[in-house]
Amino acid sequence: MTASRQDAEALDREDPLARWRDEFLIADDGPVYLDGNSLGMTPRRTVDALHEVVEHQWAGDLITSWWEHGWLDLPLTVGDRLAPLIGAQPGEVAVHDSTTVCLFQLVNVALDLRPYRRVIAVADDDFPTDRYVVDGVARLRGCAVRRGVDDLEGVDVVVRSLVDYRTAELVDLAAETARAEAAGVTTVWDLSHAVGAVEVDLGAAGAELAVGCTYKFLNGGPGSPAFTYVAESLHAEVQQPIWGWFAQTDQFAMERSFEPRAGIARLLNGTPGILGLVGAREGIALTAEAGIAEIADKARRLTGFGLDVAREAGLTTATPLDPGRRGAHVAIRHPDAKRLHAELEEQGVIVDRRDPDILRLGMSPLTTRFVDVHDAVTTLASLT
Amino acid sequence: MTASRQDAEALDREDPLARWRDEFLIADDGPVYLDGNSLGMTPRRTVDALHEVVEHQWAGDLITSWWEHGWLDLPLTVGDRLAPLIGAQPGEVAVHDSTTVCLFQLVNVALDLRPYRRVIAVADDDFPTDRYVVDGVARLRGCAVRRGVDDLEGVDVVVRSLVDYRTAELVDLAAETARAEAAGVTTVWDLSHAVGAVEVDLGAAGAELAVGCTYKFLNGGPGSPAFTYVAESLHAEVQQPIWGWFAQTDQFAMERSFEPRAGIARLLNGTPGILGLVGAREGIALTAEAGIAEIADKARRLTGFGLDVAREAGLTTATPLDPGRRGAHVAIRHPDAKRLHAELEEQGVIVDRRDPDILRLGMSPLTTRFVDVHDAVTTLASLT
Repeated sequence: MTASRQDAEALDREDPLARWRDEFLIADDGPVYLDGNSLGMTPRRTVDALHEVVEHQWAGDLITSWWEHGWLDLPLTVGDRLAPLIGAQPGEVAVHDSTTVCLFQLVNVALDLRPYRRVIAVADDDFPTDRYVVDGVARLRGCAVRRGVDDLEGVDVVVRSLVDYRTAELVDLAAETARAEAAGVTTVWDLSHAVGAVEVDLGAAGAELAVGCTYKFLNGGPGSPAFTYVAESLHAEVQQPIWGWFAQTDQFAMERSFEPRAGIARLLNGTPGILGLVGAREGIALTAEAGIAEIADKARRLTGFGLDVAREAGLTTATPLDPGRRGAHVAIRHPDAKRLHAELEEQGVIVDRRDPDILRLGMSPLTTRFVDVHDAVTTLASLT
Repeated sequence: MTASRQDAEALDREDPLARWRDEFLIADDGPVYLDGNSLGMTPRRTVDALHEVVEHQWAGDLITSWWEHGWLDLPLTVGDRLAPLIGAQPGEVAVHDSTTVCLFQLVNVALDLRPYRRVIAVADDDFPTDRYVVDGVARLRGCAVRRGVDDLEGVDVVVRSLVDYRTAELVDLAAETARAEAAGVTTVWDLSHAVGAVEVDLGAAGAELAVGCTYKFLNGGPGSPAFTYVAESLHAEVQQPIWGWFAQTDQFAMERSFEPRAGIARLLNGTPGILGLVGAREGIALTAEAGIAEIADKARRLTGFGLDVAREAGLTTATPLDPGRRGAHVAIRHPDAKRLHAELEEQGVIVDRRDPDILRLGMSPLTTRFVDVHDAVTTLASLT
């Protein structure tokens, strides 16, 4: 297969998702942007929704907006909107707080589900926050940390990223969930680098606990809140550590002791940030409307095309060639990654860098064109 | 003293802060709003700032905004802006996450500062989230909870609200901090119902740990992030439980183990929500510009006037008459509080209710006029 700019243009002309790029606020003279996996672009509807929530709801209806405009339940209604994108049922997902806080909650939840609470496993090269959270919980709870996830003997809880943040390698969700379960280990999945870019079916995989990020492929905006998934079968028994009034039964009956709400609402804690949630809601809605199957298909084709261009240009890649085994970015290894990253930016090409030697080219199916992939990779090759 | 509508109009004419109301987006036909202590009104500059951050920074500069527009350090720069409002030094305050999460962090921090970690005290009638957080941490850490703060014998950590969320009673910060310290107890202060409405001097009081809310008197917007204060003298030794990448030394060197940043930055955890932080920043800036001494003075006069109107109308109040001993709301006790709350709303008067029998009239000095106080209290009296 060739991977010329003409090929890229042809692929864009035939792209069934092409029109969705018009849903985003993108400057005509903007950069070639291959970092939608760090911060997704700006949906036009988010601009409108923020206008509505700030100037009409907040300014106009003030405190009554918490009831009149559904702010009180926004973590849950946005969660329901997200649920089908990850194979969850309504009532199994809440959108709230940062990925770090959500993960902290679920690692504690997972420990409390085990008869022994002694060992938490996490890969030594997993995303930093995931490793830090595990180390912090281990210190707090007096557990040991196993640095590696291949051998689960003697482990109680394992934290896994579905898509590797550097290489884009996609783990087999069902197989790895089953392997852990067979070993008597509870898995907490981090879907941050997968959600909105690949098809995820938590229900079919029998996954019990997961978190993920909304500001990457879901285009929720800078620091938009993360999500927590807990399988419905566990709702009656889970208890998370950060007890706050949004998780309380009959929240405004203030004289009582803490009695957690039924369902996923017991994973909430404090007052949710409404502006961030509105951004998450719009990005999630856009993804749901475009269709996750079509998005995942385009992600496989974008990354495949990028790998082809890279190979033809003689670049070294670190991303699986099997389209069923990768997420929606392509990792290029180069010892001069730091220099190349800066020079690409000077040329108007924005990618991400993960030290020491990886350039990460994110391909966000609703906004990335095949010509963007072509231009970014060939510009990169011209600088090596 | 009389407290007629003419008196109210005269007080408004002489009010040195009157012009600040023009800084807010307030509908001409809007309600009489005495709930700025639950959700402050909408600063016009917040509308502009969100427009700038969404349409220019996010949409235009994308991922580079984290560096180019100071997003990475926003929790710290907004914290520095807030610091003088609470008697803190630059570098002692970070704005991030919800009050519940911030309090969870600091109760854990406080426990780790004590040689024994056995008993946490909190008043039985403190704000629900404060009690819930204490109960949750106690369960997690295996501590006991003392329900009451008068007797601190045998207590390790005490959580105190500076202003009572129901009665508006203002605790003597310096005296109570000193009493706890003399008893070998670490105090975590919750400034939620005080900040932006009364003068707070954490430094002069020798306070070590505090949290508070920005969506009440600071007008930060719905669910805007809370703040954490840790006295500089403790920075080297504090360690909080939620370890995330925003608290990590050299955040983007991703291969390393967790090594918390110097200073208040070690209280951060995950990626901060930028939209909420921008709202907090604008509300805090407005307060700082108007001047906290002038704001606190007006709060005392607004609440004093409200208490006068209530007394003349024969209503029962539960707020201290001494202006030096109350925050910026007035509590009115009535057995029919629930009915009155609903009927007031029908009459275009928005107040807050705290079951079973309290109506809470918030007087937010930058937006509340003396005529608002007069009209709300007299309307209330007419319904009893």
